[in-house]
Amino acid sequence: MTRVGVVLSGCGHLDGSEIHEAVLSLYFLDRAGAQVRCFAPDVPQREVVDHRSGKPAGESRNALREAARIARGRIEPLSKAEEHDLDALFLPGGFGAAKNLSDFALRGADATPLPELARLVRAMHAARKPIGAVCIAPAVLAACFRGTEVHATLTVGAKGGASDALGAMGAQPQACTVEHCVIDEANRIVSAPAYMYDARISDVAKGIEQAVSALMRLSARPASALRS
Amino acid sequence: MTRVGVVLSGCGHLDGSEIHEAVLSLYFLDRAGAQVRCFAPDVPQREVVDHRSGKPAGESRNALREAARIARGRIEPLSKAEEHDLDALFLPGGFGAAKNLSDFALRGADATPLPELARLVRAMHAARKPIGAVCIAPAVLAACFRGTEVHATLTVGAKGGASDALGAMGAQPQACTVEHCVIDEANRIVSAPAYMYDARISDVAKGIEQAVSALMRLSARPASALRS
Repeated sequence: MTRVGVVLSGCGHLDGSEIHEAVLSLYFLDRAGAQVRCFAPDVPQREVVDHRSGKPAGESRNALREAARIARGRIEPLSKAEEHDLDALFLPGGFGAAKNLSDFALRGADATPLPELARLVRAMHAARKPIGAVCIAPAVLAACFRGTEVHATLTVGAKGGASDALGAMGAQPQACTVEHCVIDEANRIVSAPAYMYDARISDVAKGIEQAVSALMRLSARPASALRS
Repeated sequence: MTRVGVVLSGCGHLDGSEIHEAVLSLYFLDRAGAQVRCFAPDVPQREVVDHRSGKPAGESRNALREAARIARGRIEPLSKAEEHDLDALFLPGGFGAAKNLSDFALRGADATPLPELARLVRAMHAARKPIGAVCIAPAVLAACFRGTEVHATLTVGAKGGASDALGAMGAQPQACTVEHCVIDEANRIVSAPAYMYDARISDVAKGIEQAVSALMRLSARPASALRS
């Protein structure tokens, strides 16, 4: 069984994980036969947003405790995620990726990822284990690889601000429509823009379904086969 | 386009809508071509539960504001839902159905539904418009129809406590496995047990996919055709 770590960052697209992306990722991974473990950082959310008004709610919430809502309680602190226990990693999007997993929402191309996430991402890549990222989460991957020799091809949807920031961090941005994903075979990294577009959930699902399918294919290929 | 109202009750299975069930419902409805509108009651949640520990969190949250997380902000107060604006109604589950849409979690077969929900459910049924309910939400439908001449065939999964309560409220309980749903053709009511079982998300999805498919089929049949 392919062991996939799913990294969440709260519960709700404005201050945590994008819920549709997270659930569709869990669904397609489970349907593909993956053994999923959910993780989230045990940190206060950078903010709490009223999702009806879009305004700050003036509350404080913990990213791990809120992400547990998506994971139905089966979730571990991100600090417990180890490369040797996982065959692949998957990051759904939502502002939580840009606010709680990193500070990309504040600092753009100067973003710093959570150290525990950067370590995990780099270790997975070094072990040639595939990584998937959805929506704005590819920007977190780019931040993890900034200053390294890894220049992954990544998408955050259309050209423009976020895509330019990917390039500024050393990644190779590629435009992609909502129903599709971008596959960097050499780096074994897949990305799908999802709700970077104001899209229908069924179109978002197509892109995530493809990304999960690519992740599972890349997981199945033994590292030794590529090296030979 | 079939206009389907989806009734949410918060965000998280222990105190609101079950998130997987809600998102999978939205996904399968959208994929089937439905035009979805989300609703939730503008009421304080009966409680707030820490989904990591399963214990009360000692906070207060509003069911509509939290449900907005699942709906990405596109949600209306349940009081705005009118039968003549909708072709079908769909209720995902989670304890929110038994705590915020009704008091079934406290009172079992003596449960009272929110008056605005009871009015809507009875109006939809009287207009021969289909209703779907997932997980524990069929118990809310049973409470809506208690004391009426409607004795719908409904499932909440296996036989036992919750199923017996359906019978005590005047419904006809039927056992059903997680991958399937129960269709009451005469009443145009479909129900799927989903997370009434400790199940895999991909199996839960099968049952919800079937329930949505049945709901759309029942919506498509003109009322006049049945009456003639």
